[in-house]
Formats: sequence, C-alpha cells, structure tokens
Amino acid sequence: MTTYSDDVLGRARVTDNADLHAYYDKLARLDAGALWTIANKIEPWFPQPESVPVKWSYQELRPLVLEALRLVSGDDAGRRVVALYNPRRRDIAATVGLLYSGLQIMGPGESMTAHRHQAAALRFVLEGTGAWTIVDGQKLKVGPRDFAITPNWTWHEHGNEGDDGPVIWQDGLDIPLVNAFDAGFYEVHPDVYQKQEGITNSSLHVYGAGQLRPFGDTWHKNHSPLLAYPWEPTYEALLNAAEATDGSPYDGIIMEYSNPLTGGSVMPTMSAHMQLLRPGESTLAHRQVGSKIYTAAKGSGTSVVAGQRIDWTEGDIFCVPSWAWHEHANASRSDDACLFSFNDFPVMRALGFFREEAYPDNDGHQPVG
Amino acid sequence: MTTYSDDVLGRARVTDNADLHAYYDKLARLDAGALWTIANKIEPWFPQPESVPVKWSYQELRPLVLEALRLVSGDDAGRRVVALYNPRRRDIAATVGLLYSGLQIMGPGESMTAHRHQAAALRFVLEGTGAWTIVDGQKLKVGPRDFAITPNWTWHEHGNEGDDGPVIWQDGLDIPLVNAFDAGFYEVHPDVYQKQEGITNSSLHVYGAGQLRPFGDTWHKNHSPLLAYPWEPTYEALLNAAEATDGSPYDGIIMEYSNPLTGGSVMPTMSAHMQLLRPGESTLAHRQVGSKIYTAAKGSGTSVVAGQRIDWTEGDIFCVPSWAWHEHANASRSDDACLFSFNDFPVMRALGFFREEAYPDNDGHQPVG
Amino acid sequence: MTTYSDDVLGRARVTDNADLHAYYDKLARLDAGALWTIANKIEPWFPQPESVPVKWSYQELRPLVLEALRLVSGDDAGRRVVALYNPRRRDIAATVGLLYSGLQIMGPGESMTAHRHQAAALRFVLEGTGAWTIVDGQKLKVGPRDFAITPNWTWHEHGNEGDDGPVIWQDGLDIPLVNAFDAGFYEVHPDVYQKQEGITNSSLHVYGAGQLRPFGDTWHKNHSPLLAYPWEPTYEALLNAAEATDGSPYDGIIMEYSNPLTGGSVMPTMSAHMQLLRPGESTLAHRQVGSKIYTAAKGSGTSVVAGQRIDWTEGDIFCVPSWAWHEHANASRSDDACLFSFNDFPVMRALGFFREEAYPDNDGHQPVG
Amino acid sequence: MTTYSDDVLGRARVTDNADLHAYYDKLARLDAGALWTIANKIEPWFPQPESVPVKWSYQELRPLVLEALRLVSGDDAGRRVVALYNPRRRDIAATVGLLYSGLQIMGPGESMTAHRHQAAALRFVLEGTGAWTIVDGQKLKVGPRDFAITPNWTWHEHGNEGDDGPVIWQDGLDIPLVNAFDAGFYEVHPDVYQKQEGITNSSLHVYGAGQLRPFGDTWHKNHSPLLAYPWEPTYEALLNAAEATDGSPYDGIIMEYSNPLTGGSVMPTMSAHMQLLRPGESTLAHRQVGSKIYTAAKGSGTSVVAGQRIDWTEGDIFCVPSWAWHEHANASRSDDACLFSFNDFPVMRALGFFREEAYPDNDGHQPVG
Repeated sequence: MTTYSDDVLGRARVTDNADLHAYYDKLARLDAGALWTIANKIEPWFPQPESVPVKWSYQELRPLVLEALRLVSGDDAGRRVVALYNPRRRDIAATVGLLYSGLQIMGPGESMTAHRHQAAALRFVLEGTGAWTIVDGQKLKVGPRDFAITPNWTWHEHGNEGDDGPVIWQDGLDIPLVNAFDAGFYEVHPDVYQKQEGITNSSLHVYGAGQLRPFGDTWHKNHSPLLAYPWEPTYEALLNAAEATDGSPYDGIIMEYSNPLTGGSVMPTMSAHMQLLRPGESTLAHRQVGSKIYTAAKGSGTSVVAGQRIDWTEGDIFCVPSWAWHEHANASRSDDACLFSFNDFPVMRALGFFREEAYPDNDGHQPVG
Repeated sequence: MTTYSDDVLGRARVTDNADLHAYYDKLARLDAGALWTIANKIEPWFPQPESVPVKWSYQELRPLVLEALRLVSGDDAGRRVVALYNPRRRDIAATVGLLYSGLQIMGPGESMTAHRHQAAALRFVLEGTGAWTIVDGQKLKVGPRDFAITPNWTWHEHGNEGDDGPVIWQDGLDIPLVNAFDAGFYEVHPDVYQKQEGITNSSLHVYGAGQLRPFGDTWHKNHSPLLAYPWEPTYEALLNAAEATDGSPYDGIIMEYSNPLTGGSVMPTMSAHMQLLRPGESTLAHRQVGSKIYTAAKGSGTSVVAGQRIDWTEGDIFCVPSWAWHEHANASRSDDACLFSFNDFPVMRALGFFREEAYPDNDGHQPVG
Repeated sequence: MTTYSDDVLGRARVTDNADLHAYYDKLARLDAGALWTIANKIEPWFPQPESVPVKWSYQELRPLVLEALRLVSGDDAGRRVVALYNPRRRDIAATVGLLYSGLQIMGPGESMTAHRHQAAALRFVLEGTGAWTIVDGQKLKVGPRDFAITPNWTWHEHGNEGDDGPVIWQDGLDIPLVNAFDAGFYEVHPDVYQKQEGITNSSLHVYGAGQLRPFGDTWHKNHSPLLAYPWEPTYEALLNAAEATDGSPYDGIIMEYSNPLTGGSVMPTMSAHMQLLRPGESTLAHRQVGSKIYTAAKGSGTSVVAGQRIDWTEGDIFCVPSWAWHEHANASRSDDACLFSFNDFPVMRALGFFREEAYPDNDGHQPVG
Repeated sequence: MTTYSDDVLGRARVTDNADLHAYYDKLARLDAGALWTIANKIEPWFPQPESVPVKWSYQELRPLVLEALRLVSGDDAGRRVVALYNPRRRDIAATVGLLYSGLQIMGPGESMTAHRHQAAALRFVLEGTGAWTIVDGQKLKVGPRDFAITPNWTWHEHGNEGDDGPVIWQDGLDIPLVNAFDAGFYEVHPDVYQKQEGITNSSLHVYGAGQLRPFGDTWHKNHSPLLAYPWEPTYEALLNAAEATDGSPYDGIIMEYSNPLTGGSVMPTMSAHMQLLRPGESTLAHRQVGSKIYTAAKGSGTSVVAGQRIDWTEGDIFCVPSWAWHEHANASRSDDACLFSFNDFPVMRALGFFREEAYPDNDGHQPVG
C-alpha cells in the first residue's frame, strides 16, 4: 500500500551538510542542480494543484461587468472582458489549471475588430439577445445558454446587433496552456473586419443534424465544423436521454458537445458538457485528472468541491481543480437544473494523463469543511 | 493515352496452337492454367459488371408482395420477402454487385422469430404504420421513409403491431458480399423471441442528437449505436442544408446517414444516403466504383443510368452498377423529390477501390439510348 | 444450442405447391423471386466455401513452368505465369476464396513491359538470383525467399538480370476480389518501360529499419512505403522472437510483414506472414474466417487442412479455405521449417468478418481422413 | 502584413486612469481583473519563451557528476542525478520549455529501487558498459549511445552491473509538463525491487525488426512496446538512408525513433531523433513550435541557436527553446557527426500547435550575435 511519507526508501531523503551545500553551489554555476533536493516536490504522490476551488457570483460580478461598458471602449480594450483569476494563478491569467475564463460585454450596436490567435476560444451566452460572431467568414447568431466555438487560428470578431440591452457571455480559452508550451501567435485582420460568407448560421444548416453528414464533405481540420450548439436542442437531448437512461451517478444526465464528423471533442484542447440534474437529484463525488470550469445554466443548486460547499444559481461560475473531489445537487424538488462546463480533458486523454475515481467513503459523499 | 484494344504490347496476345493446347491440358491436370489465356478478361481496362441497370416498379411488385401474405406464413418463410434479382446475378441472389435487396411484408399483428447472421441489414419503410423491430434487445418503432439498421450478428426480429394494414419495407443486405468471402454464419435465437430491454427507441433518445454524445459512453462496436433515423428530421436536415449550400452537381442536396460517435458509415459494409432534388432540378452525370440501390422516397422523376432512362415514382427501386454513369432529374417544377439509396462505398474506401469521375461530354449529360 | 438442421423454427421451411410455383413464375418475370426458396442456402449456418484444400507440388509444376519459357514470349504473354486454380473456382481464376496465385518465370536477360492495375500484387521468390522489379520508378532486387509488394495502381515491370538461370517467383494477387466488386482498371505504361528513380532498393534504405522513421516523411498512401522484405532479416527476426517467446500454439513463431509507418498490413486487401516451426514442433488446429495460401519456404513438413493431410517441401504451395481447420508440423527433429503465407485478413478485419477458434476436441488435433 | 506594435487597432491599448485603477481594485477583491491590462502580454504576436539557449559542457559537468557518487548514496537520493536547469525555469525544474533533463550516475554494482510515476522518461547512455534497467518486469541492457524509454506509470529501476566504471546516462522526462497539468502521481514498488520476467532485452527480440510484427499481438498501450533502440542499427539506418536520400536541408539525415506497431512517437508526450551530419555538412536554419534538447552523440560541430553559437563535442547537451531559429554544422570534413535529440513535438501535434518555417534571409543562415 502506498504511504504518503517522503521518509521512505524510494523517495529522496538526503540529509544536507556543508559539503553538499558547497557542491550545490558548484552545480548552480553550471546551470545545474542536485535532483534529490527537489525530487519529492516535483514528483508528488498525487497532483498538488496551486489552483483552489473558487466561485464567482454573477450577482456580484455583473455590476462590474456592466461598468466596463462605460469605462473603456471596445476598440481600446480589444475585448471588453472581466477575467476570472484563481488566486495563486494571476501570474499566468488562469482561472483554473491552464484554462482561462472571463465575462465579455458588448453594448447594443457594438462590434469588435477581427483577429486570430493560437489560443482556442469558446463562448457560453449568459444574457442578451443580439449577440453575433463571425468565425472564418461564417456569421453566427447566439442567444442565452447557446454554446459556440472559435477554434484556434480562426479569424473572429463579435458584436451585439440587438437594441434591447447588452450581451454578456462567458469566454473560455486555453491561453495559459498555449503559453505553457510557448506556442502563442496573434494576428489582427488585415481588413480590420471580415466579410460574411454564406448565410447566417450556415454550419448549423449543414452540420446541425449530427447523424447526417453532407456526402462528399472534405472537412479535415482538427476542430468541429459545427460552430454553434443552440440551447433548445441541447436541452431536449438531455430530456430525451433522461427518459432512456439513468445517467451517471456522478453527473446526472451529461452530454458532451461533439464534432459530428468524428464524435470527438469540439476542439483538440478543450471539451464542453451540458448536464442536467433532475428535480431533487444529488450526485456522488468523484474526481478526475483535468481542470473544469462550471457555469450554472438553469436553476440552482449546491456543489461540493474539495470539501468546500458552493451554492450556485443562474450565471454563477465555479471551478474544480485537477483531482479535486466534486459532487452536485439540484436545490429544487420540482425543477431540473443544468450545469454547463468546459475542461481540458481532450489534452488529458491525448497525453495519457486521464484518471478518474469515485469517492470511496461515507456513501460517496464528501464531508463539507 | 490508354487505348482499349487488347492487341497492344502490355496485354496478353498469344496466338494459340497445338503445342499450347497440349500444354494447357497438362496444366489443367495439375489444377493449373496459363494466365495469358484469361489475363485480359480478369484484368479488364475498366470495370465490366455483370449487373445491369434494372428498375423494379412498386406498382407492379406491390400486388405480388401482398399476395405472399396469403401464400406463406411468416414462421414458415422465416421472413416473407420478395427478393429483387439482377438478371445475371440470380445465382448469388444479388440485386446489384454484391448487394441484395427485397420487399418484406408483415400483416397486422404478425411477428417474426429472432435470429442473427453475419450479413448486415438495413430497412427503409415503404408503407404501414405498425412496424417494429427489436435489435439486440432494443425495440424500435419505424414508419414510412424511416431508415433503420440491423448490424451484423445482432439478434433481431420484426413485427407489425398496427391494425390498419400490412407493413412493407425494403430490406438491404450484404449477403452476396458475405458469401463472396465465405464468411457467413447464422443462429436462431435460443428463446425464439427476445425480451425488450429499456424503453422503445432508446438509441434515438440517447444518440439521436448526433452532435451531443453521452459523456463516459463506452460504445466500441464497428457500427452506429443509433439504430433508427426517422424521416422527419432527415427531411428537415435536407431542407436546412438546401438553404446554406448549393449541394452536389451530381446529387443535389445529399446527406449520408452516419454513426454519430465516429462520423463514419452506419455499418462497415454498407452506407446509406438520402438526397433531395429541388423543384425542376436535374443533375449532371457521374460514376463511381461501387454498387448502389435507389428507392424513390418522395415525388417522382427520371434517372439515366448507363444511358438507360428510368422513370420513377414513390416506392420504385432501381440499381446502378459499379462505374455506370448516372444522373437524376426531379419531374416536378413545384415540389421537391427525394431518393433514398444504399451502397457498398465503405468497402470501396476501406479497400482502396473508390474512384469517381464526372461525365466529360455533352454538358455533362449522357445520351439516352 | 445451435442445431444445424434447416427444419427448425427460424429457418425457411415452406413446402412448395402449385400455387407457389405459379407465384414464383410471376415474380421471375419481374426480376424478382421468393427469398424463402433460397434463404437457407445464402445464409448458411457457417461458411460453405466452394474452395477446397489443394496442394500444388513444386516438383510437378516446375517443369511445366520452365516449359512456358520456350512456348511463349514475355511480350506476348504480358506475364509468363502458370496460374493455380481451385477446382471449382476456375471461372473466376481463384486459387482460394477471392485470392489468386501463380508461378511466374523470367529467363536470363528478360524484362517485361510496364503496366498498372487495380489489383494488388505480392511476390515471393522461389528460385533464381537475377530478379528485379521496378515499382513506381523504384528498382528492387529480390532473391530467394524475399517478399515484395506491388500495391494497387502502382506502375510495375519485372525482369531477370542474372545470367545463371531463370527466375521463378510466386505471384499473389487479389484479382478475383477486385472483380467481385466490379472495381478493376488496367493501363499499359505510356512509355512501355519506366525510368528508374533513385538508387536500387531505395525503400529498404529509407524504411528498412522499421522502428526508425524518416522525420518529416509525408507518406500518406494506403500501403507500405517499404516495398521489399528480404529473407535474411526476416529469418533472423523469427529466431530472435523464438528466444523470447513461446509463439502461437497454432502457428509456432509467426510474424506479419507490416507497414512500418502504421504497423498495419502491407496493403489494404492482403497481408503476408512468415512463420517458423521449431525442430519437431507440431501445432494445434484452429480456423479463421479468411482465405490463405501457404508456400513452403524452408524445410519440409506436414499440414492437415480440413482433415486432409498435405506433405510439403520447399516450393510447394497449398491453400486453406475460409473456416477450414488447419495445423502444421515440422518433419525434422533437427532443423527448423518455415512457411510463407498470404491472406485476405485485412479485408476480414475491415469489414468485421474476422473470427477464429481453436479445434476443441482430440487434444486440439484433427482426425486425418 | 502583421506589424508587431501593440499600438494598433486590434490590440489592447487602454490608457489607465484613476477611475480604472479604482475599478481594478474592485475586480481584484472578487478574484477578477480587467483582461485588457494583460491581453497583449498573454497573447503575444509570436512565442515568447522564458527559456533561453543553454549549453551544458560534458567536460565541465562530468567531474561534478562523478563527485555525486561519493557524496550521496543511491538509496538516499532515490536517483543520483545532476539536473540541468534553464536559468529562468529553475522554479519548475525545466531544462527547456516543459521538458526536464539530467545526468544520472550509477557506480559499479549499484542498483536503485523501483518506483513508477506519471512522468514519462527516456535515457540516452553517455558512458559505461554495465547499465541495465527493468521496465515493467523486462530487463534491458544498454550501452553507450543506446536510447531507451520508461513510459509513464511503468515500474522501473536501474543499475550498473559492470565492474569497469560508472555508468552515466542522460535522463529526459516530462516532469514540468505533467506538473503544468496537475497530473503527477508517484508510487514506490511494494516489493522495493521487481522480479525480471522473460529474457533480457525481450522487447528487442520480439519487436526489434520494426517492419515485422508478431501476429496476434494484443498490445494496446499508448507507448512503444519496444523499450530500447541500440546504437548500432540506428547508425546503420542513418548511413543507409544517406545513400538513398538527400535528407533534410535543416537536419541532414534524421530519423525518429518510432513505435513499430503504430509508426507514431515512442510515447505520447515526447519523441526522440537521431540525426547524422555528413562530413562538412552545414544545414540551413529553421524553427518549430516545440522545445528540444540535443546531445552530441558522435563527432563535434557547431550549432547556432537563436543567433548564439554553440560548439559541441561528444557528451555536450544544449537546448533549443520553442520557435528559436537553429542550424547545425559538422566540424569535420572527414567524419560524420551525430546529434541525439528529444522534444515535445507529439504534444504540439496532438494539440494543433505545431508550426515550422525556414529562415528566410541570408541564404538561410542566421547572423551569429
């Protein structure tokens, strides 16, 4: 049985002395060091994320997001976004792990300029009816609870063509991940704005019936050709699945937004899910290698993350660090509740890092600290 | 430039003589032969299918199909099916190439016994509202123009629970293909009938929103977990695509029924399509390596296959042999027309045999003989 | 438990009568038929190959192969080949299943013209030291027991640049398979002969250390870029494996010639193996869905195929039809014996047809009839 | 054309003021921030690695590595390794990017205890003839210039069974990468030492002829079943390839150690190469997204990395940060030179980050600063 003491044979347990310190100095002068002085730290018994569970209250943040409308112009800000930072990850602008999220606001009639970057982006709309985005020439209209993607290196620009109020959507990007690999590139569009090609929502028209694919299609990129996933059919799919299956004991009814041409994740670095907690449902705790960011999409409830209770209602965002236990409960006995989430699981799987396990004690529920 | 004469250097062109005939006799006694005597025949310049274009008129066949109801019981027939034979392929029961098709009829209240076989099957419903099938325990209800699959070696049984008339559906199977490879197996169900598991149409509930996949799903078989593809969303998908794309010059708006978990064909040996010809649309001729069987699903029109004119209306079936030129026209200037088809293209692709080309002359249309 | 009688519920068992015969006549006039009259035949309980086990004795055939040198010129024959026919498969020129094999002879100094065809080819050299082939511009020299491939649609031509005698090699092609799918194409080379590009055996130089691949390589074809697999390293690999593993109880030490860039079969329709039977080794019987053609490459022994004893020595060829039991024994107690074989297993796997099972009785050995 | 100024429309260019500072304070209290204050930093125009080119001289480091033999015991150190640190990456123990490397020493007769960890490891032997490693029960003997892998979560232990001197090998691990994803796990072996299974170097016996794979093999792990790649056949493969190809203008003759069952990289997070610079050869400069660590395996030469000249001779190690220009030259006009290297390219490809480009100016050579 594994013991978690570092004072065992098989762990580094050198007692330092003057000779060794002199030795370490000599090594340091050659851009070197003694591995045993840090081995236990860099090869921990299990993941030791610096990220902690955090909840961002939409009720608290929304006024500040609205305030940004007045304080900075879209053209000056590039994007008018309130970023969500994990306390000890501010240096790399991470919300949790190597993922970033923020709340973007666009006033009625506003539009942002076009650019592209190596980082991949996704959007989850929180409020407002006028949101649009143009991704590689394709214009998409998105409304509340819709999910959309801006795959890496696609030209994109956004705007709000409504006249009834601002749009606020949640951005999710893999910026810290891209930077961790020294892989970031950025370009502004040579014409500042793209021209729309084809009809609005064209990928929904062509790929929106996922089990029917255009014959002769030559799509070969590493992301989904379907760029938006509206709320209504997503919710209907969850209700349908709830009639036929019991779902997951850890997640209720949970579906992954997928690339209809491969069945894989929508982009190679991030995947997204929508899950439904039935009235009165509370799930069992489990944990996975990988980082996740949740958004309360419908209803209200409580999650317990690493022993910390998080109450949520629509618009609230919270994160689950890698290998942190988590479980969810719908607060209502009459209405269902939905959680949107995105994660870096495609990376964990591609690199062979993914693991998951169920909470073994206490009937599957964590004690709440 | 290729010339199609066999009297060229590079083709077999041995002049037989008495010595050679004596030699051939000696070879024959050792289960051998001289390749040059048949080389040009077995390595033709281009495909030389024995299959020919055939149309089966639903108006003509339907009375005979109905007559079978009276002539044989389902239990005695195993399946009460009128098979469609290509004239020179009767010996292997092929409709075209290595594909088989037939019209199956079940009277109100009838049910067939359960079995499984190495051959894969698909169904396209022509008439009747009471049809059901149970595939590996999953009960599916299917109606007119619905498409369903019975992948190889799945237990299956069918019936008609309506009381308003018989069900007639079209079967498509790869029986000749399986037999060509000496790969056929067959079993009757040990309990004669299966027990239904879960709710009716459960795969539609779980996998029917193709771009949303159940998270944690462990499906790993080589066929689609989605076993039925109803007509309404299929037709809607075609109409949606027609708004966003011009479609194919050879096929109009054409979609392939797909495995939502892979984007691939529904089964490894056969794929199926539904295509929509817009009012007044006539397509250009092309040809492909692979065999196809078409069914007029909606409206009426005319196809030209290998220079032969085929007029079709709902329920008619016709075939296109490998490498035969074909083109389609909707007969109506006001209504759209739809053709269902299935083919062996997945095999052609897996084996590296697939080719296609456009008809080069006459503005892309064949002369009609 | 499956019973193999057709007189059971679940099989077709209609008793014909005058009414039915009249009905069948009406169907026949519409290119149709009653499925139940042939259902049991086309959906057998288990594979019913028309191919039978056959042995072709090299000692018997070799004089006839040599005789062809005198009887026909290479240019007239196209290829000077004695084809091996399964008795009931002469109509499709098959050696077993949908595979073809033959013995090709080229005299000293001879060369054949260049062509290409949809059928894929492989070669196994039986005798002679001067053999060469040019495949898509790449010249390869092959000697006894070497294995080489001519993937489909590659330009190829062969010759014998030795002066010490003829070359005889075994050809293996998928001609009947290609024809079964109406997929055959053929072209003679526009210049009659190819020009050699690069050095001789260049693919061996570049890809011949299979676990080292050229960085930046852009090979994307569906066949191996390595076109020849010499005997010496193959035999050494078998000896090496024999030191580390027990091998297969059915095949001794058996290796599959592979595409080093994918680990898959050398071509999509055919795979080839070399197996080593240790001194005194006799294997257990098993059977597989798929057709195989064996060549005694080294030593002598006995195989039992479908209960039929086949004694073999170097150069002998024999076939194993699909689902036929087979087992092998090395006749020597002091020397090892090697069997080369090729098969259509890649197709069986791609289409989901592959099965195998061990002979269950009699300590795993068939009774010999 | 892209300009690299941040003072353009499309970049963040907000002028801060008192109101904004008050706003930023309010955001900070809610674990949030204004994206525009850091957007340009976290989305750079092109990669901005903190890693710099570094050379570690074997002549300088070797005495210190030897000194460790005396200073610490293997059992206390866990592993007796001098780690190589990039100056600004000491905090995460990285040699370059998210890769780690170090020099491990084992005295004659020493053996280390067994453990496993999520990080993957590779070894390149610099000196000593007695090195062995046991990986998941398989014992491997490795000598100078041999390459071996210890895939993630495999049990492993090492030792030196020679009596003629210490073994020094280079370790390469993805520890910083694993930690960046909070994915690290570690276990000591329950029995402290493994038992050897099978013969020494068994994977070399079974998989060492990469284009011949054991038939019926069921390997399904995400790393190569071949655990060691000896120097002699690797060098011979390079010489063979040099006869048939011109190689790469940027790398000379370069081969990637591959998984013989897939043709892919040996492990999902790291790949390794051996390249040969012909006598007098100097390559052109290029750059790639991804981090690389080179070791001079044979001969001597000069590389230019990001404009910095690095002279190397056998045993020297140097690194190339992501997107840094680099080119190589063999110092000898009579002997060839070889560079071993490993990198994180498999990750770059899996995540869609890989790019490369040639140095456009100055005939393809960097100015040396």
